[in-house]
Amino acid sequence: MAKLERLEAKLNYKFKDKNLLICALTHKSAKKNYNNERLEFLGDAVLDLVVGEFLFHKFKNEAEGDLSKLRAALVNEKSFAKIATSLNLGAFIFMSIAEQNNGGKTKPSILSDAFEALIGALHLEAGFIKAKEIALRLIEENFPNIDAKSLFKDYKTKLQEITQAKMGLTPEYETLRAFGPDHQKSFEIALNLEGKEMARAIASSKKEAQQMAAKLTLEKLGAL
Amino acid sequence: MAKLERLEAKLNYKFKDKNLLICALTHKSAKKNYNNERLEFLGDAVLDLVVGEFLFHKFKNEAEGDLSKLRAALVNEKSFAKIATSLNLGAFIFMSIAEQNNGGKTKPSILSDAFEALIGALHLEAGFIKAKEIALRLIEENFPNIDAKSLFKDYKTKLQEITQAKMGLTPEYETLRAFGPDHQKSFEIALNLEGKEMARAIASSKKEAQQMAAKLTLEKLGAL
Repeated sequence: MAKLERLEAKLNYKFKDKNLLICALTHKSAKKNYNNERLEFLGDAVLDLVVGEFLFHKFKNEAEGDLSKLRAALVNEKSFAKIATSLNLGAFIFMSIAEQNNGGKTKPSILSDAFEALIGALHLEAGFIKAKEIALRLIEENFPNIDAKSLFKDYKTKLQEITQAKMGLTPEYETLRAFGPDHQKSFEIALNLEGKEMARAIASSKKEAQQMAAKLTLEKLGAL
Repeated sequence: MAKLERLEAKLNYKFKDKNLLICALTHKSAKKNYNNERLEFLGDAVLDLVVGEFLFHKFKNEAEGDLSKLRAALVNEKSFAKIATSLNLGAFIFMSIAEQNNGGKTKPSILSDAFEALIGALHLEAGFIKAKEIALRLIEENFPNIDAKSLFKDYKTKLQEITQAKMGLTPEYETLRAFGPDHQKSFEIALNLEGKEMARAIASSKKEAQQMAAKLTLEKLGAL
């Protein structure tokens, strides 16, 4: 077990209550009479607010629905596991030997949960402002280029990378039709791979329909 | 339109930025170049954290899953519409005449959204601590008896009220079997109405299985 001081140094915060820190790092498999699930519940809400507020200020013109989507792209197991990995959190998590042998120290769900619990513990002990400061620093370190484009998963780019690498093919997007009144146009797009139609999608912009078709194709290819 | 000062008095908070307050009270139907949807997004996250933290402290022994259920019972349109009504919020919301004629000033969704937006605006201007203080006071005023029993929808009570009023019948709960190892017993319960079985449910306690059977029966009766 790595020394907790090393984790505190990475957080740039020294816990007054070491038991609270230990609780945040205790996976339920450790079978103690405490674990990090309640703190995870709290931390999850802290992170939702921290990220929501961050996006609210950063994207002053995005509608509520887009803010929600942007947040969902950032507040998820994968992102939090990445942050946890940057903290080397796996080395600090208390878990059963069985879970450890099962790869628990690198399991995204366990890492993500422990990160949320850690933020929950910070919120409890040091308050929202401090928890926010630490969470935002970690988020910005791990996601230095947070913008709408990179947060909205760019399915077109991802698909092209895959089809070029694996098949030597570039997806082609064909506009099948545009319909609806001028102020509320819809576009139907087909995605073709070497002339074979892989997916169709309809959206209120060509770009969005292309993204949707790319996503469907990625799913078809088992790449999502 | 009621005077905003009256709302501020009920909140016990004077907004420095009156435009922010107005924004929080502006429904999208008003067709201004601002509305309260982004603030609602923010306020929703504030309230999730406020209530989550409140429940975390209040129910020290509840597991994470139960805390989530308890929160869902409190953080919802119906509860927030009730708080909004206690603030007479409908009278302050800017909306189109059409929406107004459509009962918009008493519509739970519009009231609830405006309440969330108001809390979002408080968080923005006065910070989390102040927003929390005001939100908690309003929650406690409107839900003075927050306990696990009243928060978990009590389906048994509800069902009994309905069957007695409408059919003159009292539901009967029959334990069909108990099974599984001692430390992990399960119970199967049947709910009978005048000898006719309405539903069955299995859970780790009789009480919980009864609640589940009552819920199923309420659904069957179209009462949920």
